[in-house]
Amino acid sequence: MSNDFPTRAENYAQWYQDLVIKADLAENSAVRGCMVIKPYGYAIWEKMQGVLDKMFKDTGHVNAYFPLFIPKSFLSKEAAHVEGFAKECAVVTHYRLKNAEDGSGIIVDPEAKLEEELIVRPTSETIIWNTYRGWIQSWRDLPILINQWANVVRWELRTRLFLRTAEFLWQEGHTAHATAEEAIEETRKMLDVYATFAETIMALPVIKGVKTANERFAGALDTYCIEAMMQDGKALQAGTSHFLGQNFAKAFDVKFTGKDGKQEFVWATSWGVSTRLMGALIMAHSDDQGLVLPPKLAPIQVVIVPIYKNDEQLKQISAAVEVLVNDLRSRQISVKFDDRDTHKPGWKFNEYEFKGVPVRVAIGPRDLENGTAEVARRDTKEKSVMQLTDLGMKIEHLLENIQQNIYDRALSFRESKMIRVDSWSEFKDKIEEGGFLLAHWDGTPETEEKIKQETKATIRCIPLDAKEEVGACVYSGRPSSQRVIFARAY
Amino acid sequence: MSNDFPTRAENYAQWYQDLVIKADLAENSAVRGCMVIKPYGYAIWEKMQGVLDKMFKDTGHVNAYFPLFIPKSFLSKEAAHVEGFAKECAVVTHYRLKNAEDGSGIIVDPEAKLEEELIVRPTSETIIWNTYRGWIQSWRDLPILINQWANVVRWELRTRLFLRTAEFLWQEGHTAHATAEEAIEETRKMLDVYATFAETIMALPVIKGVKTANERFAGALDTYCIEAMMQDGKALQAGTSHFLGQNFAKAFDVKFTGKDGKQEFVWATSWGVSTRLMGALIMAHSDDQGLVLPPKLAPIQVVIVPIYKNDEQLKQISAAVEVLVNDLRSRQISVKFDDRDTHKPGWKFNEYEFKGVPVRVAIGPRDLENGTAEVARRDTKEKSVMQLTDLGMKIEHLLENIQQNIYDRALSFRESKMIRVDSWSEFKDKIEEGGFLLAHWDGTPETEEKIKQETKATIRCIPLDAKEEVGACVYSGRPSSQRVIFARAY
Repeated sequence: MSNDFPTRAENYAQWYQDLVIKADLAENSAVRGCMVIKPYGYAIWEKMQGVLDKMFKDTGHVNAYFPLFIPKSFLSKEAAHVEGFAKECAVVTHYRLKNAEDGSGIIVDPEAKLEEELIVRPTSETIIWNTYRGWIQSWRDLPILINQWANVVRWELRTRLFLRTAEFLWQEGHTAHATAEEAIEETRKMLDVYATFAETIMALPVIKGVKTANERFAGALDTYCIEAMMQDGKALQAGTSHFLGQNFAKAFDVKFTGKDGKQEFVWATSWGVSTRLMGALIMAHSDDQGLVLPPKLAPIQVVIVPIYKNDEQLKQISAAVEVLVNDLRSRQISVKFDDRDTHKPGWKFNEYEFKGVPVRVAIGPRDLENGTAEVARRDTKEKSVMQLTDLGMKIEHLLENIQQNIYDRALSFRESKMIRVDSWSEFKDKIEEGGFLLAHWDGTPETEEKIKQETKATIRCIPLDAKEEVGACVYSGRPSSQRVIFARAY
Repeated sequence: MSNDFPTRAENYAQWYQDLVIKADLAENSAVRGCMVIKPYGYAIWEKMQGVLDKMFKDTGHVNAYFPLFIPKSFLSKEAAHVEGFAKECAVVTHYRLKNAEDGSGIIVDPEAKLEEELIVRPTSETIIWNTYRGWIQSWRDLPILINQWANVVRWELRTRLFLRTAEFLWQEGHTAHATAEEAIEETRKMLDVYATFAETIMALPVIKGVKTANERFAGALDTYCIEAMMQDGKALQAGTSHFLGQNFAKAFDVKFTGKDGKQEFVWATSWGVSTRLMGALIMAHSDDQGLVLPPKLAPIQVVIVPIYKNDEQLKQISAAVEVLVNDLRSRQISVKFDDRDTHKPGWKFNEYEFKGVPVRVAIGPRDLENGTAEVARRDTKEKSVMQLTDLGMKIEHLLENIQQNIYDRALSFRESKMIRVDSWSEFKDKIEEGGFLLAHWDGTPETEEKIKQETKATIRCIPLDAKEEVGACVYSGRPSSQRVIFARAY
């Protein structure tokens, strides 16, 4: 199973696509650009959702649900937003089908044309702020801290499973505040939530930063982001948090009366992560033998494979396994005992390795005699023989160790590919090798655009922790006070 | 707050709509027929989802996600299905917008017309069975036991919050089996899951039955359902489970090779419940003072309101409350301590009564002196003074008692409105009073249709536990072997 797809070195893009499909994570559907998320992939997404949802609630947010459709005119109300989003959208124009008179099948009923077309939401700022107008009168109604789990549609021409699909699943937070300061604080707080989630749950080191004007969300005053490095050295934007100022409040006339009795427009934020995180997870950690999943997101954390020649041996092994299974479950560890007789142990070893199960335990008759088991970890492929006594506790520690190791490995890979460049020729050389280039930039959109045209590299972000440093723009030579991160990106 | 909306007796339909809106459960959106589910309503739906999702997983199902869009031609492939579903649908015809040349706003780009229109899923049998074709080759690939949580769209002309909306949220199970027997067993198993959920979690007594051919799901061989009675005596179908035979397998050419090496079409089921359950929950239990929520679905199960005149009193009360709050939380009871100084206790009492919080605890200075608290239950509005000692345990028992009482009350109401009728004149009289009429029926669609035309009553179901009984059809006088349930329905 692991031999019929290319290695990362041979063809990274093909390796990714084959892995997603062969590991039963997702596949392309009959509808152009839309994917089917298969049970194994969806189980990982559910784990992500569960953790994120709790983090949102712990920071005071509640969930709600707004319509799938947005009246076309709403998209035009915020000037920058319309430029960014009112382009590649799925448009509903009719609301009825009927049988063709010639019996050839069903056709769209021309009489059932909508007066105003409806757009399948590409993002929900417009419909939500139109709703908030009815919810907000005074400062007492603020803040509103709402999140929505939903599907959205952006009619992408070139799609890739999880990374860029016409329909995708995501969460979008939409908050309303009485002051700019409070909205900015919220924007930064949610960026921190995303960074914590990426690093501690996905084992994915990220750089927190702010986008340049060119790369900002359409309608935002500031877009904060977390950027991660994939194993080909390309960047992947893993989450964004936007300070929207009063743009949407003005577009949808959402005002509140302050404590001083004066009316003012409401301040807004929005923030989101999507099933794109699945792509980041796969591309950051997996290897040429298949998926590598951090234990905190693995649907099966431990698989136990019995090695036996007859029913009597299986029975004895099963009795020992039952003790271990109960111990692991009491530690909230998800464990599968694969005692199917339709497949040989070697086949199972390959299968679970390919599916990224973090820990594999094999137990045969000789193990039983010795009171041991063979424990293999997926991340390093190391095997060791361990005593059955206290094995549950040891596996619990091993899972923590694996989680940390996967993170550390990704971090040291990224550190090795973070390169300071100070000349344009060096920039052009290094960008071909992949990685994040730390370079001075003169702060103009023009320079940014020229660099993009010449190298396909974009400014991923201006890192929040960047140090002030006197320098000259790598392209124009004009003065600059800090380095930004350039990279090619997904 | 509870006085500015009609009583159930005055205007049941208006009472329902006002209650949904004033209790902050949902509201109509700017998009015709689509609702906004507000945080308080969504919190109840999330609780329903959580319990149902666990019940599905405990019965061996996994979640997955299929596309929002269905190619128009797919809907025509199953003959009965197309009649039922290819009618009032949202149709996507274009995939791009552009700026109008006259600067008047954005228009649909006529050049971006889809070759084949896409239908926003009204239900997903077609796209899912088209996908299953690629997943199923042999008996080893069966069964497939998948559930999907999703939004669906049916372009209803007359809509009502939760009960009938153009877009709604639901879950749809879609399973594939090697034999008819196994598929039928699955259909019945999920009906039982729904009935258990309705009765034990929603406190809603339901009748399990099978639909007549007229009322069957479009494409099913048999539709099983659970039917509940609302307080106006009307029926509400709260969940359905369909045995689809081989209809969709044949329409999408999904075959498997059996153990005997022969190819056969796959057997199917589908089953679903939706945000309609929110409507059932509200209409079954609530009263003229507002919502009544069963404790197992209440976002806030216990609210504690301090009664105080100064900060010193509040401080003392808060100290006692903290002990109680910790005790309740350790029992997994969700509790809110409302110590806001912006509202008076009386206002808070009304608010939480209206929102259906099952238990209200009030503590004032005299209570503290006596070591007591006033405990009020929402269902019966009884109040009693209880010792603070062991109050957590007593409230835990009280919540169980309330859950049971709400169920018992709904059950005895339903029993009082289940009426055996044996003549057509009696039928016509009784149907005006509301309730379920148990009557003999001759088994023909023609009689069923005539009864519907004359009385607006439909056959809700043929109860699974109906006794064989010799009788004559209440309408045609022809022989019948069991009674069925007639009612007007939502």
